[in-house]
Amino acid sequence: MITWNNLDTLTSYQELEKAARVNLAEAMTGDKGAERVKKYSVPMAEGLVYYYAAKQVDDTVLDALKKLADEAQLAEKFKALYNGEVINTGEKRLVLHHMTRGQLGDAVTADGVDKRTFYKQQQERIAEFANKVHNGEITNAAGEKFTTVVQIGIGGSDLGPRAMYLALENWAKKNGTFKMEAKFISNVDPDDAAAVLYGIDVAHSIFVLVSKSGTTLETLTNESFVKDALKNAGLDASKHMIAVTSETSPLAKSSDYLAAFFMDDYIGGRYSSTSAVGGAVLSLAFGPEVFAQFLKGAAEADKLAAEADATKNAAMLDALIGVYERNVLGYPCTAVLPYSQALSRFPAHLQQLDMESNGKSVNRFGEPVNYVTGPVIFGEPGTNGQHSFYQLLHQGTDIVPLQFVGFKKNQMDTDVVIQGSTSQQKLCANVAAQIMAFACGKADENRNKNFEGGRPSSIIIGEQVNPGALGALLAHFENKVMFQGFLWNVNSFDQEGVQLGKVLAKRVLAHETDGALKAFSDLLEI
Amino acid sequence: MITWNNLDTLTSYQELEKAARVNLAEAMTGDKGAERVKKYSVPMAEGLVYYYAAKQVDDTVLDALKKLADEAQLAEKFKALYNGEVINTGEKRLVLHHMTRGQLGDAVTADGVDKRTFYKQQQERIAEFANKVHNGEITNAAGEKFTTVVQIGIGGSDLGPRAMYLALENWAKKNGTFKMEAKFISNVDPDDAAAVLYGIDVAHSIFVLVSKSGTTLETLTNESFVKDALKNAGLDASKHMIAVTSETSPLAKSSDYLAAFFMDDYIGGRYSSTSAVGGAVLSLAFGPEVFAQFLKGAAEADKLAAEADATKNAAMLDALIGVYERNVLGYPCTAVLPYSQALSRFPAHLQQLDMESNGKSVNRFGEPVNYVTGPVIFGEPGTNGQHSFYQLLHQGTDIVPLQFVGFKKNQMDTDVVIQGSTSQQKLCANVAAQIMAFACGKADENRNKNFEGGRPSSIIIGEQVNPGALGALLAHFENKVMFQGFLWNVNSFDQEGVQLGKVLAKRVLAHETDGALKAFSDLLEI
Repeated sequence: MITWNNLDTLTSYQELEKAARVNLAEAMTGDKGAERVKKYSVPMAEGLVYYYAAKQVDDTVLDALKKLADEAQLAEKFKALYNGEVINTGEKRLVLHHMTRGQLGDAVTADGVDKRTFYKQQQERIAEFANKVHNGEITNAAGEKFTTVVQIGIGGSDLGPRAMYLALENWAKKNGTFKMEAKFISNVDPDDAAAVLYGIDVAHSIFVLVSKSGTTLETLTNESFVKDALKNAGLDASKHMIAVTSETSPLAKSSDYLAAFFMDDYIGGRYSSTSAVGGAVLSLAFGPEVFAQFLKGAAEADKLAAEADATKNAAMLDALIGVYERNVLGYPCTAVLPYSQALSRFPAHLQQLDMESNGKSVNRFGEPVNYVTGPVIFGEPGTNGQHSFYQLLHQGTDIVPLQFVGFKKNQMDTDVVIQGSTSQQKLCANVAAQIMAFACGKADENRNKNFEGGRPSSIIIGEQVNPGALGALLAHFENKVMFQGFLWNVNSFDQEGVQLGKVLAKRVLAHETDGALKAFSDLLEI
Repeated sequence: MITWNNLDTLTSYQELEKAARVNLAEAMTGDKGAERVKKYSVPMAEGLVYYYAAKQVDDTVLDALKKLADEAQLAEKFKALYNGEVINTGEKRLVLHHMTRGQLGDAVTADGVDKRTFYKQQQERIAEFANKVHNGEITNAAGEKFTTVVQIGIGGSDLGPRAMYLALENWAKKNGTFKMEAKFISNVDPDDAAAVLYGIDVAHSIFVLVSKSGTTLETLTNESFVKDALKNAGLDASKHMIAVTSETSPLAKSSDYLAAFFMDDYIGGRYSSTSAVGGAVLSLAFGPEVFAQFLKGAAEADKLAAEADATKNAAMLDALIGVYERNVLGYPCTAVLPYSQALSRFPAHLQQLDMESNGKSVNRFGEPVNYVTGPVIFGEPGTNGQHSFYQLLHQGTDIVPLQFVGFKKNQMDTDVVIQGSTSQQKLCANVAAQIMAFACGKADENRNKNFEGGRPSSIIIGEQVNPGALGALLAHFENKVMFQGFLWNVNSFDQEGVQLGKVLAKRVLAHETDGALKAFSDLLEI
């Protein structure tokens, strides 16, 4: 029997608050530090490993976190979710993004169909379509092959697929599976679409219009923008566009598209990278096999996330430590710092995933909570960040918990030896060094050069950013965010906070405003 | 006589703490809201205007802030800075980035030369060089024109110039001043350089190596990477590379470069966009005239920043309000949200500028301060952010102050009318709507759809992102950060917090580690 309780009502949470704080600098110094590194790790999917030795935890805190996981019924709640309960209570919807990459429990029927079958069918339809584009069965009106795919979408239809594309672009080029360049149009700012169109050969481009509802203002506006451009180039837009949408949307049966591929209301935008939303563009860019490997990695991670013992479940443990840092230790932000240029936009995707899911002030029953929920998430790839905002992370007045990600091998296999080491070794040496500099600091009589230390971090280490590892990494964070939502007792799958702005923007465009809203509209000459 | 005091020792700060808190939702409702919009604004350079009606201030708070500005001697301190006092006390250096774009006060002599003359000379040398590249006097060994410029630099040698390039790329294309495409290599991850080289025609590329000291590990490593690639393509690297460095660096007199342009120790990396660091790549990409307009905008903003009355000085007021939000109201982060795709990387630049400058725990004398200093800065362009992390901004448990930027016109002049409005109008309607949604919220019986409001924002409004406006915007934030550093009594011009990581990374590469550092190094197989 599942019960949904606020975090601060749980006995184990109150115990956790009482646990003695770990002195991280001390714990990580000397041989005991090395032992922590050995001991405090959890294997993840696809050979990734989650290391949390440099987090402010010890066996006592971990015990308390384990109890918290049990009392909060994290494993049971995940089970209820993947077995098709209505976990998105606000919108009264199932939450089925896991099913786009596997089936963890019972068959789930909704809208009269088996959902696993439905998602697999869409995947197969996309694979077939992509193969036909690649082998020249589907071409432009002149019978020429498409060379570029352009995704038109915003938010979850943009950030995740874009981050995944960038993560695999060079890997695919190196491994001979690169099929087509992908571009992305998202912003309603007309310069976004104009710039993308300026840089491509529209006659050989295929556009993927992505909107679940088929009513997203930005996306429809950009579609019109693109259609104008195609028309001006003397092209038939309907021969250059496909749609990814829900079956009930106005786009689903339109003759404006070469084809339509479907997702549904049980997949939130920010959780849609493994659905047709990511599937179409990634299958076109890299081939369906690469997308299938990506899904396999995510499915493997999901399986591990179903483990009930928190110390054996990286996503669950990551979630628990994050809540401990946020609610007990009182740290307001989290930085995501992948030491891989391929993951340059991964932090931007996680920013949406995390902040849109758990940036809530009411619990699942619409009652205000008495504790803080989702933190601000930000990040850039290392070593770039080191030369940017790390100053504050090391010596600022606030402590910001860090989530590092590192890989032993780079993607392109080209490297150079300078001063006795390769670039890849330098990259890895930097992330190892940063973990220790943050954890232990270094005393200096000149206080300006003094490092307090005590700044917690974890690191996920993998072999290489490849499709499987990327899928595993993505699913890890999706599941982490889900577990944190369970802990905070919020609904991580709606986003009512984005509605008011939309309503007011419509009012501005209809010139139905007064007061300060009219004043600002006038200043902007709308 | 200037005295450097901690913020919490100032009488006016203690008064500020006592001022009654403004109920923003109430203040911005109805006609009084419209009046605030009219009243609470400060003209900036290049036609930009700073509007702060939606900040949690009223005349009482503003009075207190004005007194704080006076007591903290903000104008005097700025004056001392631009007249050449040693403001960067930690490194015992002058702070002269303002002089790269004008002279606000006395002539400043250092290293035996007049610094304004020195910076102007470098600018002129760059202009001459760029013109020769554009008109074909300087070519590759085969006598063919260069078509691409690639900046190799990291941190301040990357983020600012890159953000500025992206901001003006489409403007330049539209206005016929686009000369060459620019690319950027920054990360020590070898895949960064490999990917850039993969996408360009190296035979027609000119590389700008940027390192003030000439010893930045990432940059030297990437230089070698590029030289290898040039050699492999049968090219003479020295015919494809220029250097931007200090006159005392090993790069200055090397025959490895076509030319070397100089900056000096009085310009911090994050303040170097208006020096040769930004000048070389931007002059090559867009022509020296465009770079000169950019400098003119910045110079105009600097002049306005010298105004002593805080309510007439946008940079100073922005700084004061930020400190009020951080120290009195207790908000830990600030989001920067430009409603312009051209400014897509402007927040990343500000993230460095702000966090590296003011993320400090000790004052100018090396004594720990008893208050929080620089906040975490993050942001993405609107409307993209609305579909990403705005959920947390509207309904999360923490209040995040917002810095909007909006423009009446887009850059490319192409637009489309959908549902009765252009994309540009939709973009502007959205930012106006967001300000009001954040400020006033909206009550709803369903608490899940309830918006508390009371979330403060300011907006800078301009005509268009053009070189002058961009320079003004950049200088505004540089000056804001400087004033905040004065208020917090920290040295905003050093970055000792980045040193420890470098030292430890070297140790890892030399295999001189033990304990946890060795353990992590082994895991990463270094």
